[in-house]
Amino acid sequence: MTLAQGRPYLAIPGPSVVPDRVLNAMHVPAPNIYEGALVDMVRGLIPDLQAVARTRADVAIYICNGHGAWEAAASNMLRPGEKVLVLSTGRFAAGWGEVISRLGVSVEMIDFGKRAPIDLGRVEAALKADSTHEIKAVVTVHVDTATGVRNDIAGLRAVMDAVGHPALLAVDCIASLAVDPFEMDAWGVDVMVAASQKGLMTPPGLGLVFFNEKAKAAGADTVSWYWDWTPRSAPGHFYEYFGGTAPTHHLPGLRAALDMIAEEGGVEAVWARHEKLARAVWAAFEAWGQGGPLEINISDPTYRSHAVTALRIGGDDGTRLRRWVEQKAGVTLGIGLGMAEPDDPAWHGFFRLGHMGHLNAHMLMGALGAIEAGMVALDIPHGAGALSAAAKVIAEA
Amino acid sequence: MTLAQGRPYLAIPGPSVVPDRVLNAMHVPAPNIYEGALVDMVRGLIPDLQAVARTRADVAIYICNGHGAWEAAASNMLRPGEKVLVLSTGRFAAGWGEVISRLGVSVEMIDFGKRAPIDLGRVEAALKADSTHEIKAVVTVHVDTATGVRNDIAGLRAVMDAVGHPALLAVDCIASLAVDPFEMDAWGVDVMVAASQKGLMTPPGLGLVFFNEKAKAAGADTVSWYWDWTPRSAPGHFYEYFGGTAPTHHLPGLRAALDMIAEEGGVEAVWARHEKLARAVWAAFEAWGQGGPLEINISDPTYRSHAVTALRIGGDDGTRLRRWVEQKAGVTLGIGLGMAEPDDPAWHGFFRLGHMGHLNAHMLMGALGAIEAGMVALDIPHGAGALSAAAKVIAEA
Amino acid sequence: MTLAQGRPYLAIPGPSVVPDRVLNAMHVPAPNIYEGALVDMVRGLIPDLQAVARTRADVAIYICNGHGAWEAAASNMLRPGEKVLVLSTGRFAAGWGEVISRLGVSVEMIDFGKRAPIDLGRVEAALKADSTHEIKAVVTVHVDTATGVRNDIAGLRAVMDAVGHPALLAVDCIASLAVDPFEMDAWGVDVMVAASQKGLMTPPGLGLVFFNEKAKAAGADTVSWYWDWTPRSAPGHFYEYFGGTAPTHHLPGLRAALDMIAEEGGVEAVWARHEKLARAVWAAFEAWGQGGPLEINISDPTYRSHAVTALRIGGDDGTRLRRWVEQKAGVTLGIGLGMAEPDDPAWHGFFRLGHMGHLNAHMLMGALGAIEAGMVALDIPHGAGALSAAAKVIAEA
Amino acid sequence: MTLAQGRPYLAIPGPSVVPDRVLNAMHVPAPNIYEGALVDMVRGLIPDLQAVARTRADVAIYICNGHGAWEAAASNMLRPGEKVLVLSTGRFAAGWGEVISRLGVSVEMIDFGKRAPIDLGRVEAALKADSTHEIKAVVTVHVDTATGVRNDIAGLRAVMDAVGHPALLAVDCIASLAVDPFEMDAWGVDVMVAASQKGLMTPPGLGLVFFNEKAKAAGADTVSWYWDWTPRSAPGHFYEYFGGTAPTHHLPGLRAALDMIAEEGGVEAVWARHEKLARAVWAAFEAWGQGGPLEINISDPTYRSHAVTALRIGGDDGTRLRRWVEQKAGVTLGIGLGMAEPDDPAWHGFFRLGHMGHLNAHMLMGALGAIEAGMVALDIPHGAGALSAAAKVIAEA
Repeated sequence: MTLAQGRPYLAIPGPSVVPDRVLNAMHVPAPNIYEGALVDMVRGLIPDLQAVARTRADVAIYICNGHGAWEAAASNMLRPGEKVLVLSTGRFAAGWGEVISRLGVSVEMIDFGKRAPIDLGRVEAALKADSTHEIKAVVTVHVDTATGVRNDIAGLRAVMDAVGHPALLAVDCIASLAVDPFEMDAWGVDVMVAASQKGLMTPPGLGLVFFNEKAKAAGADTVSWYWDWTPRSAPGHFYEYFGGTAPTHHLPGLRAALDMIAEEGGVEAVWARHEKLARAVWAAFEAWGQGGPLEINISDPTYRSHAVTALRIGGDDGTRLRRWVEQKAGVTLGIGLGMAEPDDPAWHGFFRLGHMGHLNAHMLMGALGAIEAGMVALDIPHGAGALSAAAKVIAEA
Repeated sequence: MTLAQGRPYLAIPGPSVVPDRVLNAMHVPAPNIYEGALVDMVRGLIPDLQAVARTRADVAIYICNGHGAWEAAASNMLRPGEKVLVLSTGRFAAGWGEVISRLGVSVEMIDFGKRAPIDLGRVEAALKADSTHEIKAVVTVHVDTATGVRNDIAGLRAVMDAVGHPALLAVDCIASLAVDPFEMDAWGVDVMVAASQKGLMTPPGLGLVFFNEKAKAAGADTVSWYWDWTPRSAPGHFYEYFGGTAPTHHLPGLRAALDMIAEEGGVEAVWARHEKLARAVWAAFEAWGQGGPLEINISDPTYRSHAVTALRIGGDDGTRLRRWVEQKAGVTLGIGLGMAEPDDPAWHGFFRLGHMGHLNAHMLMGALGAIEAGMVALDIPHGAGALSAAAKVIAEA
Repeated sequence: MTLAQGRPYLAIPGPSVVPDRVLNAMHVPAPNIYEGALVDMVRGLIPDLQAVARTRADVAIYICNGHGAWEAAASNMLRPGEKVLVLSTGRFAAGWGEVISRLGVSVEMIDFGKRAPIDLGRVEAALKADSTHEIKAVVTVHVDTATGVRNDIAGLRAVMDAVGHPALLAVDCIASLAVDPFEMDAWGVDVMVAASQKGLMTPPGLGLVFFNEKAKAAGADTVSWYWDWTPRSAPGHFYEYFGGTAPTHHLPGLRAALDMIAEEGGVEAVWARHEKLARAVWAAFEAWGQGGPLEINISDPTYRSHAVTALRIGGDDGTRLRRWVEQKAGVTLGIGLGMAEPDDPAWHGFFRLGHMGHLNAHMLMGALGAIEAGMVALDIPHGAGALSAAAKVIAEA
Repeated sequence: MTLAQGRPYLAIPGPSVVPDRVLNAMHVPAPNIYEGALVDMVRGLIPDLQAVARTRADVAIYICNGHGAWEAAASNMLRPGEKVLVLSTGRFAAGWGEVISRLGVSVEMIDFGKRAPIDLGRVEAALKADSTHEIKAVVTVHVDTATGVRNDIAGLRAVMDAVGHPALLAVDCIASLAVDPFEMDAWGVDVMVAASQKGLMTPPGLGLVFFNEKAKAAGADTVSWYWDWTPRSAPGHFYEYFGGTAPTHHLPGLRAALDMIAEEGGVEAVWARHEKLARAVWAAFEAWGQGGPLEINISDPTYRSHAVTALRIGGDDGTRLRRWVEQKAGVTLGIGLGMAEPDDPAWHGFFRLGHMGHLNAHMLMGALGAIEAGMVALDIPHGAGALSAAAKVIAEA
């Protein structure tokens, strides 16, 4: 039998659950794209996006996914023949590096493995070694969705400053924006890339590139028409701002999502909620891990994201557990990403739990409850008291 | 702070969560009510409603709520001056009795209190005492939403037959239809009342009255125009079938809900899911009760509904707990109903958990997790291991 | 071939087109029915409904259709054995009379035929003849949806007052509320019946009964539980106000519709729009009628409703035209109602055009354009210049 | 006063009206992007898109708008330093040329003005002059949305073949796909660009690039990661196919739209509907033009698109008329595009009517009726009988 008939819960690390309010806002026949309500509304989006990113930088809204936003940011920052330093802590900084290299840019990558954050000492050494300042930009992720690691971006900037390296700092916040605390201006980030479908609770389809004056000044005249961020800094020219037809249905969705963030108390309140929920997740997984193979991929909580937790369970239990909770309990977990190749049997020993965006204690406790039920059903050894441990964290709210 | 921002979960004992699919089916501008798709569709509803109720009886679909359906059923069955025997096991059979008495019908009521099912022996005695067969109908509920009790309807019919009493058997299945096993024909029920908003997963607004040949034969010529079930047994005459304008938006919603029941494997599969989920609920509450004041209102699991559980917790902890889980965790529990008057302080010592309809293991485990968090936060003593106990039941799926 | 693929337009005289905004407001999972946002919202509905009806009378909101609202109003006003005077100008006052007679009330009916309004002289005579004041209520419709006639309700009250007859004045405004000007208090109407699905732009499922102090004082203690309007005058007691479970999804729909009326400039602005659109309709039909069989059922514009126009075309051209515009052009016209029996061939010589509610010049001109195309296609003779004549009226906006 | 309260009708030449069915299909919380229903569904989209474009070529689905699809197509076809011949008949081929030139490609443009189609003789001369075959691709639009012209693509291919020029033929069908007849394979088109928001009736956000074997063989290794069409020819690898996260909500919308096309009878039936509706548009505008300044921009019907009609009216009557019909009648017309600069007073003498996609006779006749009302209200001279002339065309259906 199955106990899955009910509202299915998607607990993958993005796209996240779209709130009913966002979906309702998108349920409109088609608006005028030359003047009127939609055009007026877009102007108001910009300061709200800036508030979420803690910045006064410009923000370009592209119709694309996160990979498109990577390409957009890179195309504006970099000319063919230039060089970047990519700091990889999982899958996504390296992925961005691949997109960059396809632009004819030289990529130097430091790989910190899949279970650790950026080692700032190694970065310092690399920057010092670049005495001629060939490195145009340091490129990394705030949170890596594959490994669940969260990097110390403020620390990274401090190292760059200490060394006196003039490179731009470009950070991917696709998984972390409006989830993990992030301060674009205070932390000295020059270019930041995000997307609609995670902390911003809007369906995939919008890529965001934030870019400050320093980034603009370094801008590449080789950028293509569609990715050019220059016309996208002035929403007053609507058609140009969107590089053609605007994303008429995503925009009111994003508007509703930003309203929800404001009504919750602003992005700090949203950060605080995600922190508490993440701590509940860790409490449960750590308790289960006391009596079995489950292990959080990132051992030091300081470097764990509040958006996603990557788990190691071994054997084929990751896949078995994902199947069970989806078919029996209505919860879809994320596959393990980047820990092994899909055709390697080890691939089945990983999974991920997304805990970002439109997420309350009910949804999270339900996902944890489903996981425990699955481990019982599948005879996967696990420690006791995990659900109560999570509930204790929730109780602090 | 609050951890409630996310999809709110309504765990009151009806209206239950409306599936997205039902809401989408209702999201239509307005259909023709004289001919075409809507008219054709309604014909197909009837056999599917009959399948859910396990009957070949006619079914009238009224635009009204459950109380309206009570009045509809009573108006057709009973003439002023006639008499019924009402068997009360909480609040709702008595409520139906009040509606009946307003029709000028004499109501004899046996009250079995708020913590027990119908005592068949007392019924037997009452029927035997009615040697002149003044009692036209025996009226009761299958499940009482206030107390969470489930009555033995087959046993009740057996007593009536054993005594040789010719009364109609009229049963309210508003809370139980498509949740708790119910066999209208096999159990000898003559009139059955239901509504759209619980097991049928459709917003409130449709009342259903099922009535067999025996009930029709006994039908009252005093019935009012709107409640008259005669034109409502032939959906071919659409306008008459609905006593005027049809409920154009609820009907496609109900159609979608019945499709979901069929796709899950029919009503037996739906019953089985609810049974398993109810057992998980009981496992949790019983464990908590080992270390604190929480107590399931109905002690014998045989007589507990699979749709709703009424809880006794004492003091003002019912209200405090409801407030906490709603404001902090996104779960709305049901108030205690009928256990004390609302202006009696004891009123705050009760609450209810609905577990009916569009409900999967995720939603239920989330509600239980929120309750445990609430008890921790509010320092309400409770036994350990409740969530794991519930997960173990889920694991049997 | 067909040119119907597009947004279908339902031009029947109710249910009317539901605005997207109303549908979106109804697209919600399920709310709490005991406290919170829904309960708070309902209080605000009452003054807005009163504003639309121009009254300070109480308003009861029933889950039912218009026929149910007839029964509700009658059950509260009238006891078995009492008598009413029904003034029939088509189908619906007589229909209400039938509902009333089923309550054991004596019905005296004056039938003014199907092409004329109430003849006040005949009413005066009938009231004078009732020297013992047996007539408890005068019952009629403001607008008859079958014939398209609009009665002079203020004049009717003046006659009652002139004669000194104490009867209640009960009026059905189902088709006319928020369409044709109506002043409940100024016109001395004691009981008024309406429904959600026409001028109020909300799906069928809510019946409204407005009742003033005089009506309350005359109220019948024989009223049934569900129809009793007494508990329905105090929305503070939510559960009692709705006679059980509230219509959780229709209420936010109605809220949105009332907001739209307010934002348009209040009910006067809505009346003015409907008047202009109705005059455009008449201009077109009168022009077509100059060269063919088409004829507006009510010849005197003073007595034509702004909500619906009934047409006479003869032969089977009513049915042929309806079929053509639906299948070829995407417009659904109303059947002729009450002019002939459905099995009489003459039945096919009538049709109706609804022009009420969520209706702008675009929708109306499109319907008229489709009708002209249909007459051309079917070789139905018709005068020239009809569409331009309608456009000229629209141009006055 | 205003007569605009009702369903607003957007008659701009794209985005077009999104069908309710498409919006409902998009109203879903969030799907799994790694496996399951969404992944399975996408495979089925490909043959249906191919059927609409009459081709066996591959089709890449990009998250972008039409300008993005231009860039995608160009990036794959062309290397920096190569050359294209752009044939401009309004605004959009030149726009595509601008995007191409930003890629470092040399653009030779022949401008045929704003009121005429491509002159094949001039193309023949230009191709003959390119004796070294430097021109890698001939780039043009099937329909220019600004001018309303429709070019003879089959004729263009015939000229290329006659001359023996090996260039690729790349055509923009953004405005014409599923509106004007188009045969990608039969007409020898190598690369075709389209988008979701016009004939495909889905909100803006998907760009489509169709590319045949010849185009693939000529493909540029300089293409960027996001635009690379190679991984986008195999929908089996879902994540790669979409260059990252899939457009989870647009895809079910597009699925619904393609189902609607199939159910109407396939793309030929859709073409036939658009042709008839376009002829009704022309009949009206030509009749109005007999008595006033209104003039269809393209005089020869052979070269008029069935998707959009551009109008010349002079003075500021274009702007005045657009304002009137929007504010008074609920119809939004398109601005004149590319006929004059926005700061030139002449700019106000143009407007456009879109007639593409989810469009039936009702919607179109309503738009025409609103335009006539506007001309009357604004005292813009116009010929008589226009609406009847349009209705006569509709009557042929």
